[in-house]
Amino acid sequence: MKPMIPRSLEGGALALVLSLASLPALAAEVLPSWNDGVAKARILAFVRAVTEPGGKDFVPPAERIAVFDNDGTLWSEQPMYFQLAFAIDRVKALAPQHPEWQTTQPFKAALEGDLKTLAASGEKGLLELVMATHAGNTSEEFAQAVRDWVKTARHPWLQRPYTELTFQPMRELLDHLRANGFKTWIVSGGGVEFLRVVSEALYGVPPEQVIGSSVQTKYELRNGLPVIVRLPTIDFIDDKAGKPVGIHKTIGRRPIAALGNSDGDFQMLEWTTSAPGARLGVIVHHDDAEREFAYDRKSHVGRLERALDEAGARGWTVLSIRQDWKQVFPSR
Amino acid sequence: MKPMIPRSLEGGALALVLSLASLPALAAEVLPSWNDGVAKARILAFVRAVTEPGGKDFVPPAERIAVFDNDGTLWSEQPMYFQLAFAIDRVKALAPQHPEWQTTQPFKAALEGDLKTLAASGEKGLLELVMATHAGNTSEEFAQAVRDWVKTARHPWLQRPYTELTFQPMRELLDHLRANGFKTWIVSGGGVEFLRVVSEALYGVPPEQVIGSSVQTKYELRNGLPVIVRLPTIDFIDDKAGKPVGIHKTIGRRPIAALGNSDGDFQMLEWTTSAPGARLGVIVHHDDAEREFAYDRKSHVGRLERALDEAGARGWTVLSIRQDWKQVFPSR
Repeated sequence: MKPMIPRSLEGGALALVLSLASLPALAAEVLPSWNDGVAKARILAFVRAVTEPGGKDFVPPAERIAVFDNDGTLWSEQPMYFQLAFAIDRVKALAPQHPEWQTTQPFKAALEGDLKTLAASGEKGLLELVMATHAGNTSEEFAQAVRDWVKTARHPWLQRPYTELTFQPMRELLDHLRANGFKTWIVSGGGVEFLRVVSEALYGVPPEQVIGSSVQTKYELRNGLPVIVRLPTIDFIDDKAGKPVGIHKTIGRRPIAALGNSDGDFQMLEWTTSAPGARLGVIVHHDDAEREFAYDRKSHVGRLERALDEAGARGWTVLSIRQDWKQVFPSR
Repeated sequence: MKPMIPRSLEGGALALVLSLASLPALAAEVLPSWNDGVAKARILAFVRAVTEPGGKDFVPPAERIAVFDNDGTLWSEQPMYFQLAFAIDRVKALAPQHPEWQTTQPFKAALEGDLKTLAASGEKGLLELVMATHAGNTSEEFAQAVRDWVKTARHPWLQRPYTELTFQPMRELLDHLRANGFKTWIVSGGGVEFLRVVSEALYGVPPEQVIGSSVQTKYELRNGLPVIVRLPTIDFIDDKAGKPVGIHKTIGRRPIAALGNSDGDFQMLEWTTSAPGARLGVIVHHDDAEREFAYDRKSHVGRLERALDEAGARGWTVLSIRQDWKQVFPSR
C-alpha cells in the first residue's frame, strides 16, 4: 500500500525527506489527531485521487471546493447551538426593557432556559431570536456584540470558552485540504454574520467563504456615514434543501467534498456526491459521551437519522468520534 | 518622483532588473494600454500605498478587496446590456409558443427591438425578461444556453462577438491588482448566473467572486438526480443601494477599491470610500464616440449624473476613456 503523504511534500523535497525518515513516521504527520481507520484512509485516498496529476480522478485546483457544516461538524452543538447561548444572553440583557418577553415565546423559553422548546424551533427559531434582539443594529454593532460575547462566555457543562470547543481533527483536515489546493467553505444553518466574526481565527476560513442563514439588511446613512442595518426580516435559511441552494447562490459551482453531522446536511451531501468523478461525503457521528456527547436519532439538536441510514448506500463515510479521533478538542 | 513599479518586482529580483533596464521603460510595463495621466497615476499610487510594508496605509492581503461593476466598466453596455441581447434572442426563439407575447410588455418591446422601452425598465426589467424565459430551467441548462449564445452572438453595431468587447485596460488592472495580493470581485446589476459563465475566461474572476442580481432557486430531484431549478421569482436586485448590501451579504467585509461607471454604482463607491485609510473610487466616463460610445447624463443605459457631479468632492477619480486609454478593446 502506498503511504499517505501530503502532496505538498511530494517532488524533489520528498526524496530528501525519505532518505532521512521512515515512511510510517512520515505518514503519521498527516492528520495527527486522527486514529488510523477507514475514515482517515478514505479521506486521504480521496485527496490523493483528486490531486494526482494525470490521474483519472484529477480535479483542477479551482474546482477543489470543500464544504463543511459548522455546528456539530467543526465545533460542538450540545446542549444547544452556541449561537443560541449568545441569543439567550442577549435576551436576558435586554429583558428589563421588554416586560412582554416574560410571557411571549420564544423569549419566555430563553429567559427560563427552556432548551427543549428552543431546540424544537430549529435553525429558524434561532434566527428569529437573534433577529429580534439585534434588529436595527448595524452590521458593525452586531459584529462587536459577537466579539464581546465570545471573549467571556463559557460552555455551561464543559467549562471552557466556546472558542476552545472546535474539533482539532477537523482543523487539521481543513489545513490538509488547503495544503492540497482546496478552497474550504463553511455552510452553516447558523447566522452568517455571527460565524464570520470567528471563522478566520478558529478555522482559517475568511468571511467571504462562510455561507449561512441571514436576515435582510438595508444600506443607509447614519450621521452622514453609510452603514448596513439589520432588518427584522429573514432573508435566507441555509438548512436542509437550503444548503445546496446557498452553495449555488454563493459559490456557483458544485463542491467535490461535503462534511456534515445531521439530517440538516443531507441535501448538501446528496448534491455534492451525486455528480460523476471522485466525491467525498462524510457524516460525523457523535458517539462519544466520555469526551464530547453521544446523540443521533432522538436528539432535538443535530438530529441524525436519514443520513445515517442512507450513508452506506450513498458511499458516505460515517466518522465515529469515539473511534476515529485520537483527540477531540485542541490542547489547552 | 518615485517610479511606478509593480510590487511583484520589488525586492531582490528588482535590483538585477534595475541594473539592466532604464526606469521609464520598466514603468511602461505596468498597465500598458493606459496613457500616462492622472487616472493611471492615482491607481498605481493607491496600489503602492496599500502594499508598502510598514507604510501608514498598508492593508493586509486578506483585506485587499476590489470590486468592479461589469456593464460599462469591464465591457461595453451600449446600445443595450449584453444580457438583454441574450434575453431578446431567447424571447424571439420562444415566441411561436407564446402568441400572447405579441401584445404583452416587456415581450412586445423585445420582439419589436424597442430598446428605449426595454432600457427604461432597468436592471429589474432585464431580470424579469430573463426570468420569464428561463423559469423551470435547471442551473446547468441555463448555463448551457448562455454558453451557446455567447459562441455565436455578435454586437449589432461593432460587428464583433460580445466576448471581444471587454476593456483591455481593465483586464490589465484586474491582473495588476491580483499580482499585488488583491482579491478581485465583480458586482453587477446583471444576472449572476449569466455572468458566472464567462467571468473566468474574460476576466480571470472565478464564479464564486461574482455578485449579481438573482432569481430564487429550488433544490429538487429530477429522474433521481438533484438539480437546482430557476423559479419565476426575483431573489435580489444587485443595483444602487443593493450593491453594498450584496457585497456585505457575500463578502462580509468592506472593499478598499471600487470601480463603476453609472449612478447604479454610486452607493458601492460611497460604501467603499467612506471608511478611513487609503481608498480607491473610480468612475469610468464614456466619452469616446470614436472608439466606443459617448454618453452620460441623458443615457437610458448606464446613466451617469450624480456620481459625476460628486466625484470631485468625494475624491473619486473620473477616468476618461478618450484620454486615459491607449487601447479600448483587446487586439484581435
